[in-house]
Amino acid sequence: MSENKLRFGIIGVGNMGSGHVKTLLAGQVEGAELTAVCDGFEPKREWAKKEWPGLPVFEDSASMIDSGLVDAVVVATPHYDHPTEAIQAFAKGMHVLIEKPAGVYVKQVRKMNEAAAASGKTFGIMYNQRMNPLYQKLRELVVSGELGEIRRTNWIITNWYRSQAYYDSGSWRATWAGEGGGVLINQCPHNLDLWQWAVGGLMPVRVRAFCQFGKHRSIEVENDVTAYVEYDNGATGVFITSTADAPGTNRFEVTGDRGKIVIEDGKMTFWRLRESEQEFNARNKASFASPECWKIDIPSSGKSPEHRGILQNFTNAVLKGEKLVAPGEEGIYGLTISNAMHLSTWLDDWVDLPFNEDLHEAELNKRIAASSFKKPETEQTAAPADLTGTH
Amino acid sequence: MSENKLRFGIIGVGNMGSGHVKTLLAGQVEGAELTAVCDGFEPKREWAKKEWPGLPVFEDSASMIDSGLVDAVVVATPHYDHPTEAIQAFAKGMHVLIEKPAGVYVKQVRKMNEAAAASGKTFGIMYNQRMNPLYQKLRELVVSGELGEIRRTNWIITNWYRSQAYYDSGSWRATWAGEGGGVLINQCPHNLDLWQWAVGGLMPVRVRAFCQFGKHRSIEVENDVTAYVEYDNGATGVFITSTADAPGTNRFEVTGDRGKIVIEDGKMTFWRLRESEQEFNARNKASFASPECWKIDIPSSGKSPEHRGILQNFTNAVLKGEKLVAPGEEGIYGLTISNAMHLSTWLDDWVDLPFNEDLHEAELNKRIAASSFKKPETEQTAAPADLTGTH
Repeated sequence: MSENKLRFGIIGVGNMGSGHVKTLLAGQVEGAELTAVCDGFEPKREWAKKEWPGLPVFEDSASMIDSGLVDAVVVATPHYDHPTEAIQAFAKGMHVLIEKPAGVYVKQVRKMNEAAAASGKTFGIMYNQRMNPLYQKLRELVVSGELGEIRRTNWIITNWYRSQAYYDSGSWRATWAGEGGGVLINQCPHNLDLWQWAVGGLMPVRVRAFCQFGKHRSIEVENDVTAYVEYDNGATGVFITSTADAPGTNRFEVTGDRGKIVIEDGKMTFWRLRESEQEFNARNKASFASPECWKIDIPSSGKSPEHRGILQNFTNAVLKGEKLVAPGEEGIYGLTISNAMHLSTWLDDWVDLPFNEDLHEAELNKRIAASSFKKPETEQTAAPADLTGTH
Repeated sequence: MSENKLRFGIIGVGNMGSGHVKTLLAGQVEGAELTAVCDGFEPKREWAKKEWPGLPVFEDSASMIDSGLVDAVVVATPHYDHPTEAIQAFAKGMHVLIEKPAGVYVKQVRKMNEAAAASGKTFGIMYNQRMNPLYQKLRELVVSGELGEIRRTNWIITNWYRSQAYYDSGSWRATWAGEGGGVLINQCPHNLDLWQWAVGGLMPVRVRAFCQFGKHRSIEVENDVTAYVEYDNGATGVFITSTADAPGTNRFEVTGDRGKIVIEDGKMTFWRLRESEQEFNARNKASFASPECWKIDIPSSGKSPEHRGILQNFTNAVLKGEKLVAPGEEGIYGLTISNAMHLSTWLDDWVDLPFNEDLHEAELNKRIAASSFKKPETEQTAAPADLTGTH
């Protein structure tokens, strides 16, 4: 680290990676500097050299890291390669920030987490939606006990409209071999993470999911999912997502013993009971009475710093020991839920957590073998797509 | 029928029945008059005689009907008896309006529908929420094609708060022998009916439901339900209900090929696509484009006439041949969904519709046999409970 600066190298300058390059080059992350990038695809390297003159561009992460130019890497490759790249980088003493999802299957991600722990380096994941003040506030209200014990979670997150043109824009897209899943792996990792993180790290104990594959679209993977889960305390949850609904909905409702919180349209409303439901029920004698409830608009606490916020927090963690908002090891939680949803659908049955990871991998491998996309003919375009409006 | 008046007799002057008595005595239903009531419970008959001096009060429906005083009956007995009473009344040439639910199990209701058809008399069901302009408008928008083909239905109807005091107010309450079910049978019949009626009579083809029994309450039956359904066209649906959530939610979202309609807080919003999603998807070439969408507040068309509206429509059907808004035969639809939810939970498996009615009856009978409530020691209070705020 030169002059108290953390020197970043970006692995993969595709859609997400090139966004991080721009953020860093613009000097938006205090204490961070961008010192190199790498990409395995030649036209993309040529594009990068023209786009960012003077920035060292490498063919692969190993040579970039071996150059001694970087202290930390951001892994922004295709999903499947996140754990492989991270494990290699940890072995070379790098701090590592991975893009979401942590990987495509839990078994692979568990190995990455072990490598991170063994290295002692800083490990983060680009869960930029954890920087959103709304979800941070929800987490704070749950953790502090304001909402009481959780009774029900319900997230309808169907505002991921993707046309056939989107799916046709890369032959790897929405294939088992190319992405390892559909809306659960590509669009929803943030939401699957927040579904547990924002309610205080509450994970389901069993999952019964109903994935529909290629619904209204010519694709291999799931693009319409309804999942029901149960928690250890008897609470239940529902998660609904789709990429074919227009205009779609993003509404997250969490019910507790002290009321109900709804996040919708970028606003949080808290219907707060004056006393807990349990206390009211214990003392109430009237047949049709219900607990006194106050509707509260929770004030907004500003805009989310999103990706820049995660880059800043990660940089501060390395340089100043700041606590990570999104530790890399926590990427396994959302992916566990995601994998369980696939497995439940494939088996047409309940999946208890933790699930049989070998069985999941075997089932996934069947679908990869039958996939229309064959690695490693990774097809990419030289210039990143316009991702305006995506997350 | 005297002087073009339809003479009503009410069977059962409990909570609902006494409400209908008041409506009719107040002259709120044109063309209808109340000429008799009956109740099998002596203290209730005494109470009725004091409450409504001069109104003939009978011990049972047979003697009330045989008196020649009535042309039509309203069946407002406990749920289990609706079909029995209706079948007897049809046999005696009565027009019959039954309270919801149509019955407790489909097999029983099917017999009632056969009796109604054989009688040729007018047969209605007190689905008063079908009179709500919001649900009527939704149905009209679906049937007219404004919303396009249905893709998803989602109803969170958890605003049925019932304390332990409510359940303790009658030993028959929330027992298998006394009610034959919980929130699905007592609170939700309207919603289970509207879930299909308001989307143009679209019935699920299979159901996977998760009922929780006696959740946060000391009762036998289900009071927390999450159900997933699939329709013939591949559309999916979710129905969530509970009596222990406070303050609860009532939000009905329906997505179609032409957009999305949400009914919440007594308001309807239609997010309408300028062209259908299917047409847009077929012509679109841009990776991240989505169909143009207009958010429309559908104007409210007034208050619902509720029970009075159903009584008026039923009266007009008999006297003037007006089309019934809620034909009695249609009570079987919501009950079919309700029974399938129970059966799916009991079997911990999918239930295809139509389901095995004998299996359902056998499973229900097991629970009746083990129930804490033993018929016919029906416990009732002489005066009806205050039902203000219920439906």
